[in-house]
This record gives sequence, C-alpha cells and structure tokens, in this order.
Amino acid sequence: MTTGEKWVYMFDEGNKEMRDLLGGKGAGLAEMTRAGLPVPYGFKVTTRACIEYLETGTFPPGLREQILEALRRLEERVGKRFGDPTNPLLVSVRSGARASMPGMMDTVLNLGMNDEVAEGMVRLTNNPRFVYDAYRRFIMMFSDVVMGVHRERFEELFQEKKRELGVTQDVEVDAKSLKELVEEFKALYQREKGEPFPQEPLVQLFRAVEAVFRSWNNPRAVEYRRQNKIPHSWGTAVNVQMMVFGNMGNDSGTGVAFTRNPATGAKELYGEFLQNAQGEDVVAGIRTPMPIARMREVLPEVYEQFVRFAEQLERHYKDVQDLEFTVERGRLYMLQTRSGKRTAVAAFRIATDLVDEGIAEPHEALLTVDPHLFEQLLHPQFDLQEKAKHPLLATGVNASPGAAAGRVVFEADDAVKMAQEWGRVLLVRRQTEPDDIHGMAAAQGILTSIGGATSHAAVVARGMGKPCVAGCGALQIDYEKQQFTVEKDGKLILVRRGDYVSIDGTTGEVFLGDIPTVPSEVMQVVTGRMRPEESEIFQRVSRVLQWADEYRALGVRANADTPRDAMLARRFGAEGVGLCRTEHMFFGEERIPKFQRMILAETREEREAALADLQPFQQQDFEGILEAMDGLPVIIRLLDPPLHEFLPQTEEDIQNLSAKIGIPAERIREKVRALHEVNPMLGHRGCRLGITYPEIYRMQVRAIYEAAAALKKRGLNPVPEVMIPLVGIVQELEVLKEDLTQVAQEVLQREGVDLPIIMGTMIEVPRAALTADEIAQHAAFFSFGTNDLTQTTFGFSRDDAEGKFLDEYITKRILETNPFEVLDRRGVGELVKLGTQRGRQANPNLEVGICGEHGGEPLSVAFCHEADLDYVSCSPPRVPIARLAAAQAQIRQPRQRRRKSPHEAKGGLL
Amino acid sequence: MTTGEKWVYMFDEGNKEMRDLLGGKGAGLAEMTRAGLPVPYGFKVTTRACIEYLETGTFPPGLREQILEALRRLEERVGKRFGDPTNPLLVSVRSGARASMPGMMDTVLNLGMNDEVAEGMVRLTNNPRFVYDAYRRFIMMFSDVVMGVHRERFEELFQEKKRELGVTQDVEVDAKSLKELVEEFKALYQREKGEPFPQEPLVQLFRAVEAVFRSWNNPRAVEYRRQNKIPHSWGTAVNVQMMVFGNMGNDSGTGVAFTRNPATGAKELYGEFLQNAQGEDVVAGIRTPMPIARMREVLPEVYEQFVRFAEQLERHYKDVQDLEFTVERGRLYMLQTRSGKRTAVAAFRIATDLVDEGIAEPHEALLTVDPHLFEQLLHPQFDLQEKAKHPLLATGVNASPGAAAGRVVFEADDAVKMAQEWGRVLLVRRQTEPDDIHGMAAAQGILTSIGGATSHAAVVARGMGKPCVAGCGALQIDYEKQQFTVEKDGKLILVRRGDYVSIDGTTGEVFLGDIPTVPSEVMQVVTGRMRPEESEIFQRVSRVLQWADEYRALGVRANADTPRDAMLARRFGAEGVGLCRTEHMFFGEERIPKFQRMILAETREEREAALADLQPFQQQDFEGILEAMDGLPVIIRLLDPPLHEFLPQTEEDIQNLSAKIGIPAERIREKVRALHEVNPMLGHRGCRLGITYPEIYRMQVRAIYEAAAALKKRGLNPVPEVMIPLVGIVQELEVLKEDLTQVAQEVLQREGVDLPIIMGTMIEVPRAALTADEIAQHAAFFSFGTNDLTQTTFGFSRDDAEGKFLDEYITKRILETNPFEVLDRRGVGELVKLGTQRGRQANPNLEVGICGEHGGEPLSVAFCHEADLDYVSCSPPRVPIARLAAAQAQIRQPRQRRRKSPHEAKGGLL
Repeated sequence: MTTGEKWVYMFDEGNKEMRDLLGGKGAGLAEMTRAGLPVPYGFKVTTRACIEYLETGTFPPGLREQILEALRRLEERVGKRFGDPTNPLLVSVRSGARASMPGMMDTVLNLGMNDEVAEGMVRLTNNPRFVYDAYRRFIMMFSDVVMGVHRERFEELFQEKKRELGVTQDVEVDAKSLKELVEEFKALYQREKGEPFPQEPLVQLFRAVEAVFRSWNNPRAVEYRRQNKIPHSWGTAVNVQMMVFGNMGNDSGTGVAFTRNPATGAKELYGEFLQNAQGEDVVAGIRTPMPIARMREVLPEVYEQFVRFAEQLERHYKDVQDLEFTVERGRLYMLQTRSGKRTAVAAFRIATDLVDEGIAEPHEALLTVDPHLFEQLLHPQFDLQEKAKHPLLATGVNASPGAAAGRVVFEADDAVKMAQEWGRVLLVRRQTEPDDIHGMAAAQGILTSIGGATSHAAVVARGMGKPCVAGCGALQIDYEKQQFTVEKDGKLILVRRGDYVSIDGTTGEVFLGDIPTVPSEVMQVVTGRMRPEESEIFQRVSRVLQWADEYRALGVRANADTPRDAMLARRFGAEGVGLCRTEHMFFGEERIPKFQRMILAETREEREAALADLQPFQQQDFEGILEAMDGLPVIIRLLDPPLHEFLPQTEEDIQNLSAKIGIPAERIREKVRALHEVNPMLGHRGCRLGITYPEIYRMQVRAIYEAAAALKKRGLNPVPEVMIPLVGIVQELEVLKEDLTQVAQEVLQREGVDLPIIMGTMIEVPRAALTADEIAQHAAFFSFGTNDLTQTTFGFSRDDAEGKFLDEYITKRILETNPFEVLDRRGVGELVKLGTQRGRQANPNLEVGICGEHGGEPLSVAFCHEADLDYVSCSPPRVPIARLAAAQAQIRQPRQRRRKSPHEAKGGLL
Repeated sequence: MTTGEKWVYMFDEGNKEMRDLLGGKGAGLAEMTRAGLPVPYGFKVTTRACIEYLETGTFPPGLREQILEALRRLEERVGKRFGDPTNPLLVSVRSGARASMPGMMDTVLNLGMNDEVAEGMVRLTNNPRFVYDAYRRFIMMFSDVVMGVHRERFEELFQEKKRELGVTQDVEVDAKSLKELVEEFKALYQREKGEPFPQEPLVQLFRAVEAVFRSWNNPRAVEYRRQNKIPHSWGTAVNVQMMVFGNMGNDSGTGVAFTRNPATGAKELYGEFLQNAQGEDVVAGIRTPMPIARMREVLPEVYEQFVRFAEQLERHYKDVQDLEFTVERGRLYMLQTRSGKRTAVAAFRIATDLVDEGIAEPHEALLTVDPHLFEQLLHPQFDLQEKAKHPLLATGVNASPGAAAGRVVFEADDAVKMAQEWGRVLLVRRQTEPDDIHGMAAAQGILTSIGGATSHAAVVARGMGKPCVAGCGALQIDYEKQQFTVEKDGKLILVRRGDYVSIDGTTGEVFLGDIPTVPSEVMQVVTGRMRPEESEIFQRVSRVLQWADEYRALGVRANADTPRDAMLARRFGAEGVGLCRTEHMFFGEERIPKFQRMILAETREEREAALADLQPFQQQDFEGILEAMDGLPVIIRLLDPPLHEFLPQTEEDIQNLSAKIGIPAERIREKVRALHEVNPMLGHRGCRLGITYPEIYRMQVRAIYEAAAALKKRGLNPVPEVMIPLVGIVQELEVLKEDLTQVAQEVLQREGVDLPIIMGTMIEVPRAALTADEIAQHAAFFSFGTNDLTQTTFGFSRDDAEGKFLDEYITKRILETNPFEVLDRRGVGELVKLGTQRGRQANPNLEVGICGEHGGEPLSVAFCHEADLDYVSCSPPRVPIARLAAAQAQIRQPRQRRRKSPHEAKGGLL
C-alpha cells in the first residue's frame, strides 16, 4: 500500500489502457468522455483501493479525502450540489471489474436522495410521482445492497400497496401512494436496522462504496469468476456518476444495444429500448422492452444520434460495442461502452467483417475472437428431418444459438440435482437471476418467458456457450405446480417437470419432445460430409485461422491415439502429433486378453510370446497414425499406466477372465495382489515399467519402426519420435534409450530402410525439470506432461483433489483457478521455464513442447508462448483454439523464437 | 575424457589427498613409499581410467602407452624385467577403490609367470616347489578372475591330485606334482577357452587390468556398495606392484594387523601372521594363522621393525591403521595401510585415546569416528542372569561385539528366507565369502568355525555392526545334514537347522538356546538405570560428543511424539523438538473412539463436541512434551494424515466399531466410502484438512496454548511453535495462520499469559519450495519434510517404490543410493537449497530446518550443513549421530552460519 497513492480518477482522467486499475466500465467511461461523447460526469475509485479494502477491512489512507475532492469537482462540473434541495445532485454507484461480470456485483442508483432533497426535487420537477418513485427505489436498493435488508421485503410492501389500490402495473401507482411507500420503506428499514434510514448523502456514499467493494466477494460473483477463470485477486473499481433519469416521461427512456448482432454477427444495431424507465428495468428483464429499431419511430433524432455514436465507438475500439444509454427528456446520455460478448458464429463473422469493412487489420480482428468460442462451433445441431417431426410449441428471442434438448426443470437447484439423475435437463424460468447460474451451468439450455436478448438469461447463456431462448411470452409458468402451459391453436398444451422439450437458440424455436441432433456445420465439413464452400461460417473461421497461422510463433500439434483422431487433428490444422498414447491400443476386444496374458506371464519367454502376439496390432495402429500425419512428426509415448489397470479387480471379473484365457483364477488373484499399489499415481509405471520389463518397450519400438519402414517403402515420409515417459533420473533415459535405439536399428537394418531414430522424454515430475540439464543430453525433445507435473508439484492428485477440496479451495480463494484447467504459472510454470532453459542450455537443438490438457487452454497457451516453448499439443478439436490463442499471444507480446516449420499440414482444412 | 590425461601414477607420485583418483590403497601405498617404508614398487591406474573404461568398454586413449612406460620405470627401479626368465619381474594386480570394499573386487597375483619364466625361476631359486606352486596359483586366479573359468574347476583337480598322492594338506604336494598340475591347469584352460593359456606377460597384464576394472560392477561389489551407501560412480583404481613372496620358507610369511584392537579399541597390535604363505591365505581365512604377538617369537627382528612401522603410520595418519605386510626371506615389505574398520566401542575409545596420547587433536579425532557406529552402542546385550542359565557350547574369536540370538541356518539364501519366517536367524558357516553378504545382512549374527579376527566374516560383520564369533574350531559343521556338532565334556552336542543358539561377539562365547537381552550400557545410562560414572564407554562417548558440540554449526533437534521420547531426546542432547506429530496421540484406546466419532459427525456441532472431548488428552500430551523440553523450542505439527486412516476398513472392523460407539454400520461404511482416496499420499490431508475442517486445527491449537499457559503458570518456560503441514500455496498458510493465531490469542488472553505465537510450515511439496518467497512472508520457520518432498520430487511413493522397483534401480545403478535413506542432492537437495534461499530472502529471520528421516543420516546431515540450514531434527537415538556428523561437516567444510543457541540442553546426558 502506498499512502500517497492516487485512488480516485475523474472521468476525463485515464483511458482504455488502464482497465486493470479502473475496471472495464471505468476505462470505457473515461474513453467516451475524452472522445467528447455525452457521458454523465463522475469519478472512479480504483481496483487497488478495493483490494486494499478487502485485505484490511477499512478504507486505505487518503481514499476518503480523495472521494470528497472528486465529489467537489463533480459538483462544479455539472453545476449541482450533493444534498442541496435547491439543486440536488444524485449519483449512481456501480461496480466495474477488469472483466465484465454482468449482474454479479452491486449497484446503487439515485444515491444522494433524502427527505429534503425529495421535496426540493418535487418543487423543481413538479413531478412528485417521479421523485417518490426514485426515492422508493433508492431506499430499496440501498437497504438491500448496502445494509443487507432483502429487497423482497420491500417488494412485498409494494405488492400490497398495488393490491390496496387494485392495480397490477407499477406505473399505475400514483404519487401519493409512492410517498406513503417511502415512509413505509423507511419504517421497515428502521425496524430491521435499529437506526433511521441515513439522510446524510455522504454517509450514503461511503457506505455504498464499501458495499460495492464487498460485493466482489459475494458468492455468485465468486462462482462466476470460478466458471469464467477470472482471478479473485483483481478486485472491482467503483464508478460514481451523476444520475440521469430515463423515467421522466415518454421523451425519456433507457436502452442497451450492441453495435452488431451478438448472436449472428450481422451488421445491425441489436438491442432494446424502454420508454420512461430506469436502466435496471432493462437489464433485469422485468418489463419486455421494444427492439432498438423501433426507437427510430418514437425518438427519431435521438436514435440517429445514437447510431452515430455507436459507429464512432465501434471504429474507435475496432470491435463490437455493448452500449448502455439513457434519454432524459429528449437528451441522449451514454452510460457504458464495452466489448460485446458474442456467440462463436458472431465472433468469426464480425472478425472477418471488421477487416472487410476496413475497420480493423487482421491482427486487430484476431484479438476480438475469444479462442474458447471455437468449441461452440462443434456443438451439435438439430437433425432437420427429425426437427420437422416435432410440433413447434412457441417462438421466443433467439438469445444464444445452438440446439438443446432435455427434461424440463424449474429451479436452479433442481437442475443441478436432476442433471445427475436424468443426464440432460432444460432450465425453464420466467427470468433468471444471478443466483441461478449454477443451474444454468448444469442445464443443456435455458428457456425464459420474460426478457429479451440482453436479459440476464441471454447474456449469461451466451457467456457459457449454452443455447437459450428468451422472452418466450407464450409460456405460462407455474412454479408451484412445476409446469408450464402454452395455448396453441386454441388448445392448452401442458408441459410438466420431467417432460422433454427441445429449444433452438439459433432460431428461437421451442419444440415438444427430444429432437436428436447432428454434427455442426464445421464438424460436417471437417469430417468430409459437407464441402467447405457450402458453409459460410466454415469459410470465415478458416480465414481467421489462416491469419492466426501467419502471426503465431508457437507450433500446434494434437494428442491423437488413433488414425481417425490423427486424421481429424490434421484437418483441424495440427502440425503433427505431440502425444500418441499407446496404452489405449491394448484395450480392443482382441487385444486385451493378449495383454493380460503378457502381464500374467511367469517367465520372460511367456511374456515375450504374448508381446509378439500383440505387436501386429500396435504396428497397424502406428501405420495408420503415421500415414495420417505423413511428413509431420508423430511423438509416440511408450506404455505409461501401471499394469494393474489392465487386470480385473473384482472376484467376478477375475473368474470370467480365468475362464476366458484359461489361466487359473488363483494366479490372476495372486498377480492382482502383487501389483496392487497404495498410490498408483506414484507407483510402478512409465519408464519404471520399461526398466523392469524391458521386453514391453522393445516390442513397442519394434512395432513403431516396422510401421515406419512399411510406409517408407510405400513412398511415404513417416516421422516417428519415441517418447519415454516419467523420466526423473537421467540414468532411466540413458539405459532405455541405449537399449531401444539398438532395437530400432535392428529393425531398420533388417528392413533396409534409412530413418533417423529420434528419442525424447516427457517431463512430468519435478526432478526431471530440476535435472533437465542432465536429461537433455540424452533427449532430442522434451514434452512437458503438465497433468502429472501439476499433481506432483502441488502434491495432490487430480482424482483426490477435485472431488474433495479443490472446489472449496477455489471458493475460498486459496487458488484463483483450477490448476488442472489453467496452468499454474507460479509453481508448475516455473518448473516448465526452468526445465526449458536448463534443457536448451545443455542441448541447444532440444525441441520443447507441452502435451498436457493445458495445451488447448488459451491462458496456458499464452504461458507456453512466453516460456518460449516450440509447440503445444492438445486434443484435435482444440487445435484451432490453440492456434488462435498462440496468435493472440504473439500479437500481444511478440517473441523471437518462431515455430520451425510454417503451417504445412497438407491435409489441413481449417 | 581428456586425451592428454594422466592415467597412471608411480608409487612415489601422489599422496593421501588423492584418494579419489588413486583409491584408498593406492594413496596409502604412495604415502608409505614417500615416507621411506619398504613397499614393493609399482604403479597405479586411476579411478578415472576405470570410469572411462566402464563407459566406453575400451581403454581410454593413452592408457596403454602410459602403462607400458610405467612398467619400464618399475623394471628400472627394481632391476628385474617383466617376462625375462633370467631375472623375472612378477607383479600383483589389485583393485583399490576410494572406500575400502574388502574382498569385493578382484586381484591377480604372480602375474608375469609363464613356462619360460617358471623354468628361469627354478634355476634362480632352486625351489621348484615354490615356483610351480606360484605358477599354479597364477593360472587359477587369472583364469577365474580374468577369464571367467571358475576356480572350483581348478580346486577339483588339486583335490584329485591330493587324493592320488594320499595327502590332505597343500604343503604336502611335491614339486613334481605341482608341475603336473600346472600342465593340467593349462589344459583345462585350453578346453574351456579354446585358446592356449596366454604366455605373453603383457597380454596377461592388460587383460588383468581390464578384469579389475570390470570387477567394480560384479554383483557382490554392487550389493556391498548399496549396503554401505558407496556411490556406484566412483570406480576403482588398479595397483600393479612387484610381487614379494611370503611362501619362500619359514623365514617368510604374510600378515595383517591393526595398530589397535578394532573390536575393543585397546592399544595393542591386533592381527595375525601366517608363516610360509601368500597374503590371500590370510584374508580368505583358509588356514588359521597365529596371533600377531607370536610373530615376535618366530621372527623377532622383523617383528620389532613392524611394530615401529605401525606406530609411525598411526602417527602419520592420526588414526588406527589396518596393515598388510609380507616377509620374504626375513625381509619385511609393507603392502597396504588404510584406516581400520572398527566397532563402536573401539571407535570412541580410540578417538579419546588418540587425543590423550597426543597423537591427534580433538577435531582430528572426531573425524576418525563413523557417526553411524553410535547406533551399535544402543544394541542390546545379554541379560547376565539369563546368560548364566544357558550352557556354554564353545568359545571362538570375539570378532564383532554385541549379543545375538536366533535360529541356526547354514546358507546365505536360507538366512534371507527364514529371517522372514522365523524373525531371528543366526548364520553359521565354516567361513563366509563375498557371496554370503546378503545372508549376513539378514542374520542377527554370524558364527564361523574357521578364520580369525581379520577373516572375511569378521571384517564384514564389524562393518555391518553385527555380532560375530569367528574361528570357533570346536564346531563340526555338516552342510549336507544342515547341522553342527560340538564335543563337550565327552558328550557330542548336536545343533540342527532351526535350533536356537546365542552368541556374544564381545566375549567370543557361544551358547545353546535363546538368551534374552537387556539394554546396552549407553541405553542404561541414558534411561537412568546406570550412573554415567559407572560406564567407561558412556564417558568416552560423552567426551567425543562434547567436542562435536564445540565444532558443529548445525543445530540438532529430535522428532518426538511423546513426553517419554522428548525426555530421551533431551538426554541424547537434542536442542529442542523439530517435529512432534500429533496424529499418534489419537490412537490411544480411550482416544480413538472419540476421534472416530469426530470423523463420523454429521454436523459441525457434533464434530466440535467430539473434538472438545479430545482436547484434554492432547493438552496433557503437549504439557508433558513441553515440560520435558522446558526452555527449548517444540515444533508441533497439526494433524497431517487423511482421516480414513483412522477408520476401520474391513466389514468386520466396521461392525465392531459400530457396536462400540453406537453409530450405525451403514453410516460408517458410507463415510469410509466417502473418504476413500485413489492416492492417499496425494489426497485430502495436511493443511487441506485444516481448511475443510477448521475446527480440528482450532482444537489442537487451543490444546497447545492451554498446555503452554499451564506450564507458564507453574514457572516453566515452554516454547511451543505451531507447524502447519503440507502447505503448497501461500494462501493456505495465510488463511490458517490468521484463524489459528486468533484462537491462540483467545486462549492466552483468557489465561492471562504472555507468550509469543510462533507459526511456521513444513516444506514438503515442490511448489512450496518454488514459492518459498511468498510463503516465508507468513512463516516464522520452515521445516523441510524430506520424506514427502522426496516422494513428490521423484514422483514415486516410498510404499510403492521400495517393494517394486527401487532395489532394481539401485542394482542397475539408475540410482546411487535409496533417496529415502540418503537425501538426493541433485533433485530434492536443489529444492531444499532453493527454498531456503528464497525463504530467507523474503524473511531474513526465517529459521530453517529439516525433519525428514534424513535428519539423522550422516551424508544428509552434511548436505544440510552445506545448504546452510539452521538445524536437523531426527529420531532421539540418532541425535548423537547427527551431532557427530554435523561436527565433521563443519571441520571438513567450515561455514559462517552457526546455530543460534550453543548446546544448552540442560537435561542432556550425552
């Protein structure tokens, strides 16, 4: 903590580069203010102030003074005074983190209101209904957000008032009743908190700032960060801004809009406008607003002005903007601009359009695509023929694309529970709230009856990549009976909890029944069922990935264990196989008994005979994979798992195996006992097996080089590389390499084929990284096995941690993210860097990659780029993600080392 | 490899500082030659040449030429010529490693002999019997050692010859028959090897050098190194030396002697002399030689000369010397001097005597004591009353002290097998051979009928610290019938395999039956059953340890879980408790059900109630330990093992527990299932438990500070320190420390006691060492848990490795030593150093120690000294070992950082 630190910035201080300190919203407000757009003036409290507050539980020294000074400047600029009934300034106090976390943290509007100010405002506006409505809202929000008196308590009073008045709509409640409500609200507050509702605006302000700070750690925000891999350490900024009012009549209103359609990417303003309303009404989805285009009819001049601002901001940021605005008595105010969340289809369309329209250069457009989105493009879609057979129930807003079918549930908790039992569930709600996100995560898709394309359900579903149909008003949902009804063609259709419903988030359609799905367009092209030129989205993705390949410095390979996977990987653009696991090859029906016979062998001769039986199978697999990757390197990892994994464990399975392969059950039982391990993860596996049973690895190496020789003779160019797993001691590698090189040489000599013998190792225990200088002298390549390396570096196994304490660690913010998903830079990352440096120092030709699951995770790919690795390897469908992430890493932080071969995956489609 | 490297040194080149390069024997020969002692001249091939040979399979460039040049210089110096029948030079070719490995590697004597040389020698000596006996021996040794034709094949021919002649003793075979035998031996060689016996001396020489190189890796040498923790990478030197002959008549002979008694330490020449024999006859124990003192009678002048040389060498080396010599026709030749292996009693007596006699300074005397030996002093002895009840069977040479009883076996393999079944076995052999060492290791003690105090059995048993009675000639051993007989008082007593026999290696007595043992003198003093002044050995040990304390820079603490252990540790000189494990405190009969109830609790309230029940027990333990260590720090580790370790696993045990504590079996079963872990070592344990069940640690901390407060009120000075285990993420420590500090403060405030709250952590996963800079900011101390750190750094668990592949790794020399016994400097050691440096950088007051089992192992203690740790902590009986090892480390390699408090263990006896 620096006591002299600047904690508070006015809106015309700072810019979009200061996101980390000012938050996304704050940086955007600064940028818009400096660009001369009409932004209600205000100031921002930094994220660092929030972090200090959360650590110490109190405002850091100087913050209070800086806020008072900023308030003074704000008053001066707007010509109003905080708490002055003759010319009152009201403000909003909003969170604003570095990354957008829609609806997760707290906001207080209309702050600065009190009895005197209200009276003064009535005199000024001559609109007591507006004033007491604002005061009522303020008391409710302040009490709820700042003081922990639940807003439902206030809503109840409001409902009661409406019942008394015999009305149903908020707008039907008159000024007098609202004024009474204000008194009732204040009384409720006093009962609950034992003090009168605070009338002093400065008290309101400081308490609200603290509340926003604290809301960073509310459970739903923590859960959201966990799901979205946002570090808990960032903290939120607080924006204090002059209030403008969209609820001052029909020449007022509030809206949100994207500069392009975030679902489809189409170049059109996409959003909603609500006349005579405050912003919260739109975001919360309580009233269904009009499409933004209709604003042209009701407020034509304001609309034209807004269109200009939207275009200006998109050009400025070179990306789709998600805008919030308010119209106060015919005057447009811009309240927020930020990069818009979008679907995968939209992201690739927008990126290519931005370039084609001359708004962005390819390297700028590349940065607008979240690499994770690519996965969405592989999601299945409804089979059109099947879809035609199912009755259309209703149509809502196509809020998040994709097809989803499941059994209907109505509560988030129920979704989580029944997803376990039923497999697929569909969450149906009138509208969703931040508390529902765990249920949304558990569901296949979300269907709501209220709210539009920017409602909570829509925004969160798009963020999760889940299909969502929103605002489907035809649904009459009855939570109590756990059912909904739809009136269709004069008939009432009843859907109960547990019934199947299918939704198409791309079209907004809702169907009765469980419609089967087919692969997505991209998958159909990649698997050859559709031609590239038939798919527009495929072509757009392909363009973006080609740009990515031009930029990226990091190679991208795939983990593939079968010829089919290898082929697929190549079509996804893999530049080789970074990890081919050989153990899965032993599990085929014909193979497993042979492998079991090998394990149960009592002499080396018996074992060798069983292995000889297996060799043709392995060889055939290797031929297929090497052929699929012709001309590109294929790293084949020798047997890794402990042998007991291949034997039956229950008495029944032992008896069955005995009957099948004719070995006495007692011998099998004996072997199972002998092979039992206390900690299989830390047991007799990897190269340890290779050393105690040299004949296994010898067979595998024989199969690899026989396969390569056969291909070579057919005129192909196989590039096999042998990877010895789990080396932690240089002598392990030395001993095995010497033996296996000889085996390989024998094969090549016998076959009369010339091929370089390339052997390397996986670095997956800390000692291997620490002694990389020794190991690299005997290795052509290192491949970091970051799954195991994470387990041994932390000293916890994934199996045991994920079920038991890892979730709690993340919730309690002991860990920022799950280290099995996002590579732990500080610990595991240091070993990766250290192993790479020491290895290359001892062997400058050493090729270094990573083949853990992290290889397809964008943050981890960025780390691998920084750590100067040669390549990452990941599952085939993640290859495009890694290509994108690698390009973004190079654009953001260019490095010297470039991947050896430019993208030359001749069979590559994407 | 340096091609210009000097591979060969003449005997007057090099000195005792060059042991690493020249081997122990070679350095000794150089030293004796330079001191003017009569050493047969020769030269040495370096250990580096051996390493090069073993790596490449061929002589390094230049070695052959350097050997030829050295041979030329040898011929010049002694005036004889290699292969010249008119003036032949014969040489011995012997191994000589850095550390003594008695009998483990190969030797060839009489090399340079061939048909022509033999005839020439007959002409020169006029002693054909001697010449052909020498030729015969040479063919046998060369064939056996160099060419792999087993010596038994030759022995059979010799036995047959003796049968033909009707004689039993070797010396009865005449010259003519010996000459015939030479021809028969050569014929056997030709049959076996398909080539004539090599007549060319240079061929013999080069082949012999290679054979000695190779013998470094023979199985028994590898096994010996494994047991004695000698690195496999050292290699052996080769000594080529002019032959002198002890078998040229009764004015000739050969002997071995220690300058002091290696069993008792008494200041007396101790050894044997064999007239008219070659050296191998003594070491192999085939003929029983005369005690060295009797040499004074047969060769008085030579004896006096030898006594002078012995004294000279002891003063020169400031340590007991183990000497080999030969007398050739009345002329004394010194063949070897080396530091003598000795028993623990001897070691401490000698060290103190050397100082008292003015031969060595304390720091020099300290270096003569192998710290491991201390353990021998704790070995039990026979209960004298019980001993009196058992019949004395026979008496042999008291070759290695201590009491041992067990069931008789006659074969090394049988010893290994039956030790598993019977527990204690006693290995009875006519004599032992290098192939027997695994059986000696498995046995409680060794009893032989042939050979004396320097026989193989005696030397190896002393090295192992095992009791041995050697050369007990009364035993008539029948291997076939697996029995021995002793004639006593006219009766024949029969002892069969499986019968109990007891031996006292201190007295040489052999008894029938199984005599119970009592604690050793040192243990009796330490446990208060004998006064220090009653025990001479105790006083000597005490003096040596006091010297050690003056020198050492490293603190020594003990691992103690009970007040009894803490008291014992303090008496052994511990300066505090470095690790008090709290989990064992839950296993008492009254306690375990309470702890189980805690685990089975369904609510936090239930759990807290069960914990409250346990607190008084913990508190009582802590009071006892803190009281025993009054004034010294006691590091208490909070609960570490996973909870399932405390629950029954079998259905039967579950039923029993259910009946006992009245919780339904199903609930227990459910919990056992829920707590099951795939890899318990990497599971929900250590601070991970502390975080998910905060109430457990809270109870423990409450108990610690309640205990400390109670002692404080009694006027004592408790110094508890709380250790949070298994931290790998700084936030784990932060969160727990904050919570537990508050708990401790509450206790201290309530009790009105002022005590510093000291909290630290164990560093036992790699990530903790890597992020030590972060962790140290929240820790008062680090304690390296090198057991777990070894497991996670290597990625193998001790349980799974030791049974499965670790032995093979050591045999195949993938690992030099078992990393769970000797700390792995290269990997684990680097993490220890790195963690220490980073930790101290962030927190200069950080105290750093080690509490794994390595803390009591001398090589590891030396590492901890070098790594600049503050202290080591080990089991109480190993405290003196650590004190000695720490002093030796400081003497050998002084460092700046000294332990904080000088040895102030007020209750310390030793």
